[in-house]
Amino acid sequence: MVNFDYQNPTRIIFGKDTENEVGKLAAEYGKKVLLHYGGGSIKKTGLHDRVLSSLKAAGLEVVELSGVKPNPRLSLVREGIEICREQQIDLILAVGGGSVIDSAKAIGVGADYDGDVWDFYTGKAEPQGSTLVATILTIPAAGSESSQGSVITNEDGGLKRPCNSLYMYPVFSILNPELAFTLPEYQIACGTADILAHLIERYFTNVKNVELTDRLLEGAMRNILHHAPRLLHDSKNYDTWAEVMWTGTVAHNNMLDTGRIGDWGSHDIEHELSGMFDIAHGAGLAIIIPAWMKYVHQHDVHRFVQFATMVLSAEMDFNEPEKTAMEGIYRLEAHFKRMGMATRLSEVNILEDAYEAMADKGTDGDTRTIGNFMKLDKTALVEIFRLAE
Amino acid sequence: MVNFDYQNPTRIIFGKDTENEVGKLAAEYGKKVLLHYGGGSIKKTGLHDRVLSSLKAAGLEVVELSGVKPNPRLSLVREGIEICREQQIDLILAVGGGSVIDSAKAIGVGADYDGDVWDFYTGKAEPQGSTLVATILTIPAAGSESSQGSVITNEDGGLKRPCNSLYMYPVFSILNPELAFTLPEYQIACGTADILAHLIERYFTNVKNVELTDRLLEGAMRNILHHAPRLLHDSKNYDTWAEVMWTGTVAHNNMLDTGRIGDWGSHDIEHELSGMFDIAHGAGLAIIIPAWMKYVHQHDVHRFVQFATMVLSAEMDFNEPEKTAMEGIYRLEAHFKRMGMATRLSEVNILEDAYEAMADKGTDGDTRTIGNFMKLDKTALVEIFRLAE
Repeated sequence: MVNFDYQNPTRIIFGKDTENEVGKLAAEYGKKVLLHYGGGSIKKTGLHDRVLSSLKAAGLEVVELSGVKPNPRLSLVREGIEICREQQIDLILAVGGGSVIDSAKAIGVGADYDGDVWDFYTGKAEPQGSTLVATILTIPAAGSESSQGSVITNEDGGLKRPCNSLYMYPVFSILNPELAFTLPEYQIACGTADILAHLIERYFTNVKNVELTDRLLEGAMRNILHHAPRLLHDSKNYDTWAEVMWTGTVAHNNMLDTGRIGDWGSHDIEHELSGMFDIAHGAGLAIIIPAWMKYVHQHDVHRFVQFATMVLSAEMDFNEPEKTAMEGIYRLEAHFKRMGMATRLSEVNILEDAYEAMADKGTDGDTRTIGNFMKLDKTALVEIFRLAE
Repeated sequence: MVNFDYQNPTRIIFGKDTENEVGKLAAEYGKKVLLHYGGGSIKKTGLHDRVLSSLKAAGLEVVELSGVKPNPRLSLVREGIEICREQQIDLILAVGGGSVIDSAKAIGVGADYDGDVWDFYTGKAEPQGSTLVATILTIPAAGSESSQGSVITNEDGGLKRPCNSLYMYPVFSILNPELAFTLPEYQIACGTADILAHLIERYFTNVKNVELTDRLLEGAMRNILHHAPRLLHDSKNYDTWAEVMWTGTVAHNNMLDTGRIGDWGSHDIEHELSGMFDIAHGAGLAIIIPAWMKYVHQHDVHRFVQFATMVLSAEMDFNEPEKTAMEGIYRLEAHFKRMGMATRLSEVNILEDAYEAMADKGTDGDTRTIGNFMKLDKTALVEIFRLAE
């Protein structure tokens, strides 16, 4: 176990009807709220009305900024920053999934900074404060509702980059599993793939003696693998959604990787896919992760055997453990297929001619490596794309 | 899953040499520190000196209050409250195990209250604030370093009572597994029994559909059952202590029981034992928990079967599941015995003539029940004592 410094101050209000408490909660943090969301879906479901009445009943002044798209755009973030400054916003309330929340976090740190907010995503500067952010989660997936991270896409060059900062923890997040009942199958598949990916990225580490968090990560992975397929034929089941929604938060709130160093190579690779081709993040992960696993598994066969047996209940082959390791990867692939997802680049029309450019971008022209479990250079990335062909 | 409102603001600084950061950390919260600890052990190990130099190097003024005993006494708490008021203490730094931390928390809320601090432990009043508390943990056991609870013994009547309050979360806790290297075998046994008990109390619930937290609790229980015996013949192993220490915190920081309602009957019963007979808390739990399990298991055999198979790797008897349930209880008992602990009241000289009085005290003269999994009245308590005979 490596030394660590862990704190997660986000307050979670979880359960049925909890979105109606938002006004009372938000009023603890100021008088003027920027309501930030995506398109029409929260209007269609009536959530927008309920949130607005709760905020107004608590005496809050509300400014709205909608239009967040998947892979949230820097241009809208800049618009939000302008509004925060002009209107002296006390609290940004993100109502939506990870894209909306990530956009709100970027607006938050940007509003508190004299320079350009993109500096935080290129590593040129670090946030020193933020306008407060709170969330009402509608899509269990990104875990952004209780994380210190945000991922933004700069349309100028199709660059998708992450930023992590203690100032990005939301002050509170409201999680009502009922709000996910209207999600279509494809979003269920993508969201649960993202949750699983957050656990997998933390699980594959070179740090030894991390057994508590191994057990916790394995438990959380088994739980999402068990419940995700159930949603495909029972998409309005509160108990199943509650498992998926809470697992999504726990997967990314950083407690399960205390004392470890996660990998994050697959996430970095996927950012190139979705930055260049605008495919959903979870869809990209379902393609990249099995290929990444095939490429790296010999680096630590024991860990892949552990994954196969403890998470995917593969039989242990004591004479040829590598076969067990591979069985785990095949079972994971089978899970994604069962969820109706593509597991090959060709299935989403990303063909060989793009490999070179994606690998180049992902490694900044082969000047940096990505991932921690194994350091991947440009050649490794091309190899992984071939394994995902 | 039941609705929940979860927040744990305690910052954890975990790892080797981390106690040397205490001055810098404490200085963020004020200028005057009350250093609170037990007897001579932290002086013998040199920890007292290291802490004092770190605090003084950070320019802090330090007042000391030592003398905390296991089952911390109300009288010392009152002394601490006086000091806080007279000396205008900004931060109470508890250096020790659960008793020292619980004592510090009581002093903290007491110093911020005009009435008698015991009111918080009888339920007559609720804390509305606290002098800040921070900790350096030396005994992994109680989980108090990141919990909202404190247990104090009123010498007047041998009453041991808990208090829970959001104001009792420490602002930061320093966890260095090396500080536990000097613990004797008996304290290792008691501490790890307490950690296991915190997980067991949360596990046995009547709330259905709590599968994520079931998996997390099972993982944490397996981890403590695996590592505790290792310490008996390798008590200076950093990696093993790191597992035990972090499991101790995670077992009681409330994340693993989100959406559940725990039992806490065994803890309440044990408080009578250690209130009246002054035996160690963990020692009392090792006796009471197996007896409690034998008494309640038919209330929900399925859950005991799950405990037996998922936590203690008992073979499933598909035809007679109750046998599997009992096998889990026997394996738990065997674990405590392997740790060198008594598992019967008679072994610690608590005999039949005391059952009636303990049961009477535990239920306030049969006017209240204890526990949630099953509500236990005075007769039930006597029955449990007989099963622990």
